Amino acid sequence: MNLPSDTVLSGEQLGKFVSDIFGNHMPFVNLLGMEMVYQGMDKAEIRLPWKDDLMGNPILKVLHGGVTAAILDTVGGLMAILHAVSTWPSVSIAQLQERVGKMSTIDMRIDYLRPGKGELFIATAEVIRKGSRVAVVRMELHNEKGTHIAFGTGTYMIG
Amino acid sequence: MNLPSDTVLSGEQLGKFVSDIFGNHMPFVNLLGMEMVYQGMDKAEIRLPWKDDLMGNPILKVLHGGVTAAILDTVGGLMAILHAVSTWPSVSIAQLQERVGKMSTIDMRIDYLRPGKGELFIATAEVIRKGSRVAVVRMELHNEKGTHIAFGTGTYMIG
Amino acid sequence: MNLPSDTVLSGEQLGKFVSDIFGNHMPFVNLLGMEMVYQGMDKAEIRLPWKDDLMGNPILKVLHGGVTAAILDTVGGLMAILHAVSTWPSVSIAQLQERVGKMSTIDMRIDYLRPGKGELFIATAEVIRKGSRVAVVRMELHNEKGTHIAFGTGTYMIG
Amino acid sequence: MNLPSDTVLSGEQLGKFVSDIFGNHMPFVNLLGMEMVYQGMDKAEIRLPWKDDLMGNPILKVLHGGVTAAILDTVGGLMAILHAVSTWPSVSIAQLQERVGKMSTIDMRIDYLRPGKGELFIATAEVIRKGSRVAVVRMELHNEKGTHIAFGTGTYMIG
Repeated sequence: MNLPSDTVLSGEQLGKFVSDIFGNHMPFVNLLGMEMVYQGMDKAEIRLPWKDDLMGNPILKVLHGGVTAAILDTVGGLMAILHAVSTWPSVSIAQLQERVGKMSTIDMRIDYLRPGKGELFIATAEVIRKGSRVAVVRMELHNEKGTHIAFGTGTYMIG
Repeated sequence: MNLPSDTVLSGEQLGKFVSDIFGNHMPFVNLLGMEMVYQGMDKAEIRLPWKDDLMGNPILKVLHGGVTAAILDTVGGLMAILHAVSTWPSVSIAQLQERVGKMSTIDMRIDYLRPGKGELFIATAEVIRKGSRVAVVRMELHNEKGTHIAFGTGTYMIG
Repeated sequence: MNLPSDTVLSGEQLGKFVSDIFGNHMPFVNLLGMEMVYQGMDKAEIRLPWKDDLMGNPILKVLHGGVTAAILDTVGGLMAILHAVSTWPSVSIAQLQERVGKMSTIDMRIDYLRPGKGELFIATAEVIRKGSRVAVVRMELHNEKGTHIAFGTGTYMIG
Repeated sequence: MNLPSDTVLSGEQLGKFVSDIFGNHMPFVNLLGMEMVYQGMDKAEIRLPWKDDLMGNPILKVLHGGVTAAILDTVGGLMAILHAVSTWPSVSIAQLQERVGKMSTIDMRIDYLRPGKGELFIATAEVIRKGSRVAVVRMELHNEKGTHIAFGTGTYMIG
């Protein structure tokens, strides 16, 4: 989406625009192969197909713990930003970029439940503490069979 | 280091062999460009040169939070394993691989202190809770100017 | 329950005995006024009636954050121990006391969602990572109206 | 300190007034027996003498994990507030109470390193992430012999 920076967005357009930034304009997200799945403003979902580059221990053929942390931080950040923009009136792309540039992860906890085995990994998130300046988000990682691989909890600065 | 699996290692050889596994046989570690710096059995250090693929927000030109989490998890895991093997008598490579294969991160917290700006990132770790089955490790990330970027705390299953 | 130390317990008796230790033989649990509610071996529940001694900020009349942390650590520890003993065959009280004495909290995260207002607080827990040596438990705190006050996650050494 | 609510405080007076609120006007802090030790605006310290009421496991005679969490949350909150007020110009007591009433713990991690044995427990804190709205604080608990019992990390809403 290459739109003039004074284009005004609101509601669902805003959500899709944010998803597009995450999915297509973050080099590290592309390096890993994460794909944003737009699900509305109340839910965030990212899919990550297995590739050998994501392996930690090559004997076990499982995701490196850092991949799990990276996808959970990303889906948590996406959720926090969708939550923030859902409370805004319409904004221009220039304003959106300025405000998104100030958002950041404050802290994150990852709980590794089972080895990261699978063909496709699905990360989801929901906001558990809503605020105008800070949001707390819970994240989960499952594989394509529904096996629960990890939990995450992240605290994000959003305004 | 391609050695027969019945080669017996001890002490410093064991430490260097473990560093070699982390630095040269973990695909995700190579994808990011992490370099292990062997510092003895009591300290772990990993260096990561900047490259554009590691960017989150391309406007700010900073590390994606997932890169920070990945390098901190890796240096924490390396430290936990060095701590574990430092308490073992000599072992064969086959035994080492079997035992290392059972080690895993249980949980991890990352505190993001400052934006991940720099040319070279240095992650270090030390054990704060020593045990035969579980080790707790504190990790730090700095850039080449000594700016403190993040803290981590990880709990690792080691035996 | 004052039973001879060579009394052999199993199954539900064991669970009730552990609940009794937590509810009646831990001075700090009594100081706060926590009450164990036996719910079987798969679930832990503790109730805590409001009293003014538990206040942090007296202007707001809410629980001190340390009370929230204390009840969540307690219900998480109870859940971890119930999980551990549920996998044991029958044991004597002497053996149980020896093994319970070795159990401990390794780490815990608390997420404070809303102010701790209410007349009765209900803490519940479930195991999310089962192991023979380490268990990871998620905890929740609600008030008598169902308002969700806090989440917790704890990692416990159980064997 | 019973001062009229329009009294204007600044600098060290403000720090001592905040310490006084924590030490003398929070019922739960008094129930446990915590004593504030004013150390200037850059450091927070709380002392807690052993008493049997603080015990978890009575066989081991150690602090209940909830006591450790409570003192670390308290010293972290005190540090976060001292940090916040140190950046303010002079304020009236009424304004201070209004602003302090809005401060809260967002999340906290405790790492339990060694059993809580001792006669006197000393909790200290320092700010690791300074901000106008959120502060991140690291806390430590030692006993009178210098044994390191626990680490904490807390994220606090301060403005």
